[in-house]
Amino acid sequence: MTNQRVVVAAPGTQTISFTREFEAPAARVFVAHVDPDLIPRWIGPRGTTVEIRRFDARTGGSWSYVVVGRGGSWPFHGSFHEVTASSRIVQTFEYEDEPGHPSLDVLTFVDLPGGRSRIDGLTAYLSVEDRDQQLDLDSGRDEDFERLEELLADAVVAS
Amino acid sequence: MTNQRVVVAAPGTQTISFTREFEAPAARVFVAHVDPDLIPRWIGPRGTTVEIRRFDARTGGSWSYVVVGRGGSWPFHGSFHEVTASSRIVQTFEYEDEPGHPSLDVLTFVDLPGGRSRIDGLTAYLSVEDRDQQLDLDSGRDEDFERLEELLADAVVAS
Repeated sequence: MTNQRVVVAAPGTQTISFTREFEAPAARVFVAHVDPDLIPRWIGPRGTTVEIRRFDARTGGSWSYVVVGRGGSWPFHGSFHEVTASSRIVQTFEYEDEPGHPSLDVLTFVDLPGGRSRIDGLTAYLSVEDRDQQLDLDSGRDEDFERLEELLADAVVAS
Repeated sequence: MTNQRVVVAAPGTQTISFTREFEAPAARVFVAHVDPDLIPRWIGPRGTTVEIRRFDARTGGSWSYVVVGRGGSWPFHGSFHEVTASSRIVQTFEYEDEPGHPSLDVLTFVDLPGGRSRIDGLTAYLSVEDRDQQLDLDSGRDEDFERLEELLADAVVAS
């Protein structure tokens, strides 16, 4: 795997942005983000499982799941502000065990030549402090996307 | 009406925060934010009407309405990340005619002595530019809350 997530988080700002390329078209990468059967196959650190409580990936829908590992379980939930097929997801995100720090997450899916694609991600937090705290945990997204790339290499995931 | 909205929007940040007191308990002010029959009675500039397309004010719900005036109509939509009765609403917000600039809005309802209450508001934008552009329009919320105060003075609005 040579694709790496490139993260930008300028000091003193309330955002984290990233780009990440994939060896698959945008439509397939998008499907992996909205299909509740696929979410548990790439979200969360290796060795954990994801228990979906609710996952209705449409504009005005909402989601909720628990990441379960040997060391504990971590519940999350959010709402889908916008879901536009193969191109854009705008959703909220909150870790329920430390409530009061929701964030707004925008993912844009862009096709590249050669059947490849790129995700442009932008997350806005309520404060610089919230952003900085999340920055310490942000590398978890690298592992998610490594798992996603492996999943996409599996021909089972249709676009 | 002596209650005024106090707005804080520090230069270079991505947030607008405010406080606003009301001559009514938090429970009644909250109800006016979640009852789709009441929304059209105080949202929007005087002289406009609000056509509700969808308004499901619960955690994981969503909303959509059009403000209609003599000079045109302005469609908005969002999702409800969290709705906790009488105390907290976390929702997204986007003006559909200028898409791509969603924001995350947190309203906290706090009871004060003497049957009064206060809203603490905090909105986070995806960029400083988005925030600055919205700041030009933010005074519209003053008129909304003036209308809300008049509505609350009407005994019809139960808690």
